[in-house]
Amino acid sequence: MVNEFELIRRYFVRDGRQAGVALGIGDDAALLEVPPGAQLVAAVDTVVAERHFLPWTSARSIGHRALATNLSDLAAMGATPAWATLALTLPRAEGAWLEQFAAGFMQLAAAHGVSLVGGDTTAGPLTVSVQIMGWVPRGTALRRDGAHAGDLLVVSGTLGDAGAGLRFAREGSADNPDADWLLARYDFPEPRIALGLAARGLASAAMDISDGLAGDLPKLAAASRLRALVAVEKLPQSAALRAVAPPDQTRDWSLGAGDDYELLLAVPPAKIHELQDKALQLNLTLTIIGELTAGAGVQWTLNGGDFAPRVTGFDHFG
Amino acid sequence: MVNEFELIRRYFVRDGRQAGVALGIGDDAALLEVPPGAQLVAAVDTVVAERHFLPWTSARSIGHRALATNLSDLAAMGATPAWATLALTLPRAEGAWLEQFAAGFMQLAAAHGVSLVGGDTTAGPLTVSVQIMGWVPRGTALRRDGAHAGDLLVVSGTLGDAGAGLRFAREGSADNPDADWLLARYDFPEPRIALGLAARGLASAAMDISDGLAGDLPKLAAASRLRALVAVEKLPQSAALRAVAPPDQTRDWSLGAGDDYELLLAVPPAKIHELQDKALQLNLTLTIIGELTAGAGVQWTLNGGDFAPRVTGFDHFG
Repeated sequence: MVNEFELIRRYFVRDGRQAGVALGIGDDAALLEVPPGAQLVAAVDTVVAERHFLPWTSARSIGHRALATNLSDLAAMGATPAWATLALTLPRAEGAWLEQFAAGFMQLAAAHGVSLVGGDTTAGPLTVSVQIMGWVPRGTALRRDGAHAGDLLVVSGTLGDAGAGLRFAREGSADNPDADWLLARYDFPEPRIALGLAARGLASAAMDISDGLAGDLPKLAAASRLRALVAVEKLPQSAALRAVAPPDQTRDWSLGAGDDYELLLAVPPAKIHELQDKALQLNLTLTIIGELTAGAGVQWTLNGGDFAPRVTGFDHFG
Repeated sequence: MVNEFELIRRYFVRDGRQAGVALGIGDDAALLEVPPGAQLVAAVDTVVAERHFLPWTSARSIGHRALATNLSDLAAMGATPAWATLALTLPRAEGAWLEQFAAGFMQLAAAHGVSLVGGDTTAGPLTVSVQIMGWVPRGTALRRDGAHAGDLLVVSGTLGDAGAGLRFAREGSADNPDADWLLARYDFPEPRIALGLAARGLASAAMDISDGLAGDLPKLAAASRLRALVAVEKLPQSAALRAVAPPDQTRDWSLGAGDDYELLLAVPPAKIHELQDKALQLNLTLTIIGELTAGAGVQWTLNGGDFAPRVTGFDHFG
C-alpha cells in the first residue's frame, strides 16, 4: 500500500515548469499567476460512484469525465482553462485503477493546458471532486444573464448522443455498428473550450447544457429575464443517434438525457454568420433552434404545434 | 425533498455584493477579482464521514472543520482568504442537518471574509470537499522551502489538545471539567490566519501541522534541505491537556494526534522578538521548540537524551 504523498507524486505530479504556476503540488497551497487585466473564473463539480457512472465504467473514463464536466463550465464562460485541483476519495489505493484514472484526467488536462496544482486523497466511498480555475479578459465572460430579445438560440454539436451511449453502457451494444461512437460520446465528452473562446464578443449569453436542454434552457431565459421559443424538430441529432432508436426516444434523449457537454448560446442575428464561420473552422456545427423574446419561461413547439417535454433535466436530489 | 438549486440557495447563498466577487453562485462559474500585483493561492481538502469525524459529530462542527482545514492551509502560506467552493455529497437533503452545517461553514467564512462562490451538491455517502482561494502580494508567500540554517523552529498555540478532545468525543467526558475546552479545540479549530499574515516578511518558512508535528516537520526540513533539532520537552501544552492524561500520553498527542491546526514557522533569530510581539497582540503564544541546521532529517531529544516519537502522523491510506 502506497502512502498518500507517494500516491499523488507517482500518478499526478508532472515535472517541469508549468504556465502560470509559481509553486505547484507539495506545499500547503499552490501559488498561481492570473494574467494582468484578467478575471479569475472558478467552478466545481463532483462525480460519485453509482450516481454518475455505472459500476463497470473504466477508470480512464471517470478521470476524463471528472475534468471534462468542469472544463465544460469554463467553456460556457468563454474562459481559458489554467489550473485544477482534485479531491479524490477512493476505497483502496490500487495502482492499476489509479494509473488509468490519472491517464484519463491528465491527458485531457494536457490537451487544454491545465496544470493540476493541488490534490487531496482520502479513503472512503469513490467520489471525485474537481475544481477548475481559468481566466477571461476583464468584462468579456459569457454569462447567462447577457441575452437580449431578438437573439437567436444556438446549440453546438448534436444532442442526445450521451443518452443513447448510456443505454448501450447499461444494456450492452449487441454489435450495433453505431454503439461505439455513441458510447464514446458518453464516456469521453469533449468540452467545447475552443468554441467558448471563439464566442467571446459574439454571443451575448451562454451556458453548458450538461443537465439537458429541457432543464437548462429555462435557467438562461430566467437569468436574462426573457422568454425562449424553441422548435424541437430543429434540435441537432447525429446520424448514429437516429439509427439506434425511434424519434420519440431520440427526442427525449436530446431534450433531457444530459451529459452531452454541448453549449447553448444566445447570439444577436448580426453576429451569427461570423460565429458559424468560426465554429466551422473548429469542425463543429452550430444549429439555430429558436430565439429569445420579451416575456418569461420557455415555449416548446414541435412542427408548429405546442409541445411539452417529457423530461425536466437531471436533479441531483430528485 | 428540495431540489439542488433550492438547496444551495436556501442555505448557502448570501445576498449583497461581496468583496472581489464580480459574479457569484448561479452561473456556470464564478468571476473573481484577484488584486493587482497579487498571486492567487489555492488549496483543497476533503473530510469524509467516519474517516475524519465520528458518526455523532454535529453538523455544525463538520461545516466548521471542512472550511477550517482549508483556511489553515492559507494561514500557512501567509495568504489573505477570499473565496471558497464547496462540493457536498450527502445521503439525503435534510433541512435540519443542512441548516446546522451551513451555519458552521458560513459563520467561519464570515469571520475570515470568505465568500462562497461555487457549490455542487450530490447524493451519495457524506463527503465534504472544500477548495479555498486567497492571495498574497507577489513573492511574499510563506513556503516550506525558504528556511535557512540557524533559523529557530517555532509553533503557535498549544499542541495535543485536539487529540485529547477526540478521546472525549469517542469515550465521553464523565463531567471532566477540562473536557469542554478540549472538545471545542477538536470540533471548532481556529485557523491561524492572522498569525500567517503577521509572519510575512518575518518567518522564512511555514507550514500547517494539522497532521501532527512528528509527521509534518520532516516535510519542512526536507523542502528546505536542512536538519531539524527539536527538544520535545519544549512542546507547548495547555493546562487542560496536562490535567487529563499522564505525560507519556500527552506527549504522544502533542507529537502525532494532529487536528490542532497550529502553524510551524522557521524564524531567523533576529526576527523572533518582533514576531513574538505581533503574536502577543493576537493573544497567541509562540514557542521556540528547536532550530534548523545543515544536514537532513529530524533529531528529536527529550531532556537532552535521544527520543523516537511513537507516532508518525496521519496517513490517509495508512
